[in-house]
Amino acid sequence: MSAIEFKGYALTDPSRWNDLKVTSIKPKNFSSCDVEIAITHCGVCGSDVHTLTQGWGESKLPLVVGHEIIGHVTRVGDKVKEFKKGDRVGVGAQIGSCMQCRPCKSDYENYCPNGISTYNSEYPDGVVSQGGYATAIRAHQQFVFPIPDEIESRDAASMMCAGLTVYSPLKTYGAGPGKKVGIMGIGGLGHYAVLWAKAMGAEVYAFTHDKSKMDDIKKMGADHIINTEEPDFYKPLANTLDLIVSTRDVYSPETPLGSYLSMLFVHGKFITVGIPDTNQPLPSLHPFDLASNGCLVGGSSIGSKKEALDMLELARKKNVRPWIEEMPMKNAGKALQNVKDNKVRYRYVLTQDLN
Amino acid sequence: MSAIEFKGYALTDPSRWNDLKVTSIKPKNFSSCDVEIAITHCGVCGSDVHTLTQGWGESKLPLVVGHEIIGHVTRVGDKVKEFKKGDRVGVGAQIGSCMQCRPCKSDYENYCPNGISTYNSEYPDGVVSQGGYATAIRAHQQFVFPIPDEIESRDAASMMCAGLTVYSPLKTYGAGPGKKVGIMGIGGLGHYAVLWAKAMGAEVYAFTHDKSKMDDIKKMGADHIINTEEPDFYKPLANTLDLIVSTRDVYSPETPLGSYLSMLFVHGKFITVGIPDTNQPLPSLHPFDLASNGCLVGGSSIGSKKEALDMLELARKKNVRPWIEEMPMKNAGKALQNVKDNKVRYRYVLTQDLN
Repeated sequence: MSAIEFKGYALTDPSRWNDLKVTSIKPKNFSSCDVEIAITHCGVCGSDVHTLTQGWGESKLPLVVGHEIIGHVTRVGDKVKEFKKGDRVGVGAQIGSCMQCRPCKSDYENYCPNGISTYNSEYPDGVVSQGGYATAIRAHQQFVFPIPDEIESRDAASMMCAGLTVYSPLKTYGAGPGKKVGIMGIGGLGHYAVLWAKAMGAEVYAFTHDKSKMDDIKKMGADHIINTEEPDFYKPLANTLDLIVSTRDVYSPETPLGSYLSMLFVHGKFITVGIPDTNQPLPSLHPFDLASNGCLVGGSSIGSKKEALDMLELARKKNVRPWIEEMPMKNAGKALQNVKDNKVRYRYVLTQDLN
Repeated sequence: MSAIEFKGYALTDPSRWNDLKVTSIKPKNFSSCDVEIAITHCGVCGSDVHTLTQGWGESKLPLVVGHEIIGHVTRVGDKVKEFKKGDRVGVGAQIGSCMQCRPCKSDYENYCPNGISTYNSEYPDGVVSQGGYATAIRAHQQFVFPIPDEIESRDAASMMCAGLTVYSPLKTYGAGPGKKVGIMGIGGLGHYAVLWAKAMGAEVYAFTHDKSKMDDIKKMGADHIINTEEPDFYKPLANTLDLIVSTRDVYSPETPLGSYLSMLFVHGKFITVGIPDTNQPLPSLHPFDLASNGCLVGGSSIGSKKEALDMLELARKKNVRPWIEEMPMKNAGKALQNVKDNKVRYRYVLTQDLN
């Protein structure tokens, strides 16, 4: 039996979305492939806000969110070979998949149609998955990532979702030497995208409308910073960029998506990793917008374990560290409000205070 | 001086879009890199209909359309080395580009931002480009394709635009052995897409709502024919296809674009080559539609000379021939009406009658 008491800061009343209450939670049944983790850190993700505010649909209750989790292994199942008690590990936004389908067998388990999210999902036996604003979590070893010694837990936490979510498309679509990569929206995800793309050797174009971030973005290493409030900001870059990773999760009807696409070189890709509320589609596109340079608009969903390990190795080798602010877990409500209000620079990491 | 009289079936009154009048036309000034061609055949493309009906904006007048041109070389400029008098050649939808930009220098001249269309464009000196429902045309040698002896002119004509437009994305995105390729809309372009994809060795899924075409599509070689009027037709194919080439140029608000995307395997591509009227955008998309399989929606625009030569070699080697109906050029108005009404099986080729 586990010596850990499973409790977390939970949503209990959707009308008070960021007033989280300490609540006992039921962990998944421990299986032979599972790892149990005592959580020390958890990042605060925009997904947490969308889920708590019910923007992605009605959530389960009570619900503990958080999927940028770092902690120490306290228990492993009989079939776990990769981890042992005491190891420092992470868990991201996915905590289960079928392990049988073509995506699962192709190192694309993050695209398994029967994937289980780290919180607000159900295990096959009906247990609700609960996230990382909590004392502990159990996870199948496939969804547990070893953290290199050189990376502190505070820095590793937000890599588990924010970092991986932008690492995956950058890697998939070839960010590297000789490539020109645009990053749209420099927040939690976008600042990682700038850091990774630079570490991969690409020439980085950062797009922001927020003048107050420009000095930071320069320090992050962007080669070019483009103020999207300047009229015709996109024109000098026509037919230039190989890839744009957009982290925006809200597109107003005025967002000139076609203007962004016009900056892509032939067959360039615009990958949107932000997921807005269900009632906010992408701005309308005409095939003309896609035909003039044969460009593509795509999506991406977190990343695979293979990509997570690659990302951690890149962070270790190139000494990439995120820009974060730490606060105790009891202040989650405040952190969430600041994320919603776009006041975070550039990621909050909650530290354990429920022991 | 040329011995050819340049005249063609021209639009003179936009209110009578398919009542074309025999009209004298002014060819481009003959340059040292140009080839002059006596036209024998010209295919009838949906672009001709969009242009004549002013669906893509106001056209120049008088205007001769047609950009699936086959004929014999009658004259070559001093710098032309690839062709000589008497050669059988073709011209497609593009007749000029800057030759200097990154796309032009990367065998992507079809994406040159200063490309010149075969008709309804202007040369730098102001001469209006005029298409192939005519006696003759002049073109820079880069935009003239040699036709292999084994391919009859009647068969080669519609390859110049319809064939190339679908060949390019099939080739670019890897249609071949072991790949599952969907073709959406089996008309002039779509029937070529089925033929090419089979010749390339892919497994072909043809999507149509038109039961009257199903026997034909089987004869074209499609491995699977899916009736899109069946409810939930897409569900058995979830997460299966590597590529979908859509030739539809009109999407009603009811078109379940997300349903088509759900059939793609991870990072699969949906490439739309149809270009609807300017007031008909793509159906709205939500990032959720793109995230679940990390798919991409892209465009494509005709093809490069390199791709045209590859395509003709594939047609020669694998004996690929289109399904066409021939009629004399004076019947262009009827052919155009039938294209507009979706009555063509599967491409009209007009034969010269203005000599």
